[in-house]
Amino acid sequence: MNRTGLMIILSSPSGAGKSTLARRLMDWDPTLSFSVSATTRPPREGEIDGVHYYFSSRQQFQTLVETDQMLEHAEVFGNFYGSPRGPVEKAMNDGRDTLFDVDWQGGQQIRASALGGHVVSIFVLPPSLPELERRLRSRGQDSEEVIAGRMLKSRDEISHWAEYDYVLVNDDLDRTEADLRAILTAERLRRDRQAGLGGFVKKLMAEEA
Amino acid sequence: MNRTGLMIILSSPSGAGKSTLARRLMDWDPTLSFSVSATTRPPREGEIDGVHYYFSSRQQFQTLVETDQMLEHAEVFGNFYGSPRGPVEKAMNDGRDTLFDVDWQGGQQIRASALGGHVVSIFVLPPSLPELERRLRSRGQDSEEVIAGRMLKSRDEISHWAEYDYVLVNDDLDRTEADLRAILTAERLRRDRQAGLGGFVKKLMAEEA
Repeated sequence: MNRTGLMIILSSPSGAGKSTLARRLMDWDPTLSFSVSATTRPPREGEIDGVHYYFSSRQQFQTLVETDQMLEHAEVFGNFYGSPRGPVEKAMNDGRDTLFDVDWQGGQQIRASALGGHVVSIFVLPPSLPELERRLRSRGQDSEEVIAGRMLKSRDEISHWAEYDYVLVNDDLDRTEADLRAILTAERLRRDRQAGLGGFVKKLMAEEA
Repeated sequence: MNRTGLMIILSSPSGAGKSTLARRLMDWDPTLSFSVSATTRPPREGEIDGVHYYFSSRQQFQTLVETDQMLEHAEVFGNFYGSPRGPVEKAMNDGRDTLFDVDWQGGQQIRASALGGHVVSIFVLPPSLPELERRLRSRGQDSEEVIAGRMLKSRDEISHWAEYDYVLVNDDLDRTEADLRAILTAERLRRDRQAGLGGFVKKLMAEEA
């Protein structure tokens, strides 16, 4: 099959449930390829290199950018984040879809990238900002100052909602997960995503009925 | 809510399961409005006027066409078929989606109509032509000659598959129904289909966090 994989961009402010939703989507569809980001930020407790992030030094990261091995990258709170190009190209050539957990800057750069694949972009909104702040606090991992910074970043992130194909309001995780599944199912059923369809119809019409 | 309803076009050759799928979709979502076609063909046994079709005389039909009350119409096997404009406009203004069970000619005319709504078009393919013929025969309602005519019309219908947004191969009715639900769910989640979204985000951003 000559199908080219989709690039599925999932963005949302921190705390709106994006990572949980991404993980659930990966569990639902084992053929999905998750684009593990590279970052210069130090690992948090429990984070595994190559699973949650590729942890790298600033110099390593800089080299990857300069040699065009980053599909997109951006600086957030003084740390660099980026999506390595190699795994995405491989998945797409294998006809597998890739899921990106990136912010609006990453989304814009992936859309603009010349990988030639179909891009599907989804923005997840929180039901409210106080609810978002509550979720950030309940993690118990950040200081007041960090939370204030995240909330500012969240507003900046939300301001880009209109750049996305789909918008979900995550007031119920199960419902939002079902919506994500529906979007992925539907996008794969679009005529122009089904590479083998022309051949199928040709064969169908050649049959003696 | 200022949402304008979608126009959902469902086409397929006769016997590919389209009517069953349309009925199931209507059962699943009671807010869907089904566009009952008008026709000049005589009612078959069990067909109810206003439910399966609006049965009308050639002269009545002609008047509806001439007064621009048909969204689309076409002649098939010597009978006229068409979609009355009124119920569709009403549903769309109410923010309800309308499902059309029409052939490729109807699909083209609905797309070209100036109703200004979003059109989603879905084509259902049979798994094979012998299977299609088997299904037509199993109805037991048509003569050999009629079946031969339908198979010719089916080939003509299938030749228009590439005009549709989505294409489904109906080799399993439950699976195809689930796919249709996913398409409808996803299409309603597209940013540009959600009329209240701009207001929601504005309110969200105005909140004190």
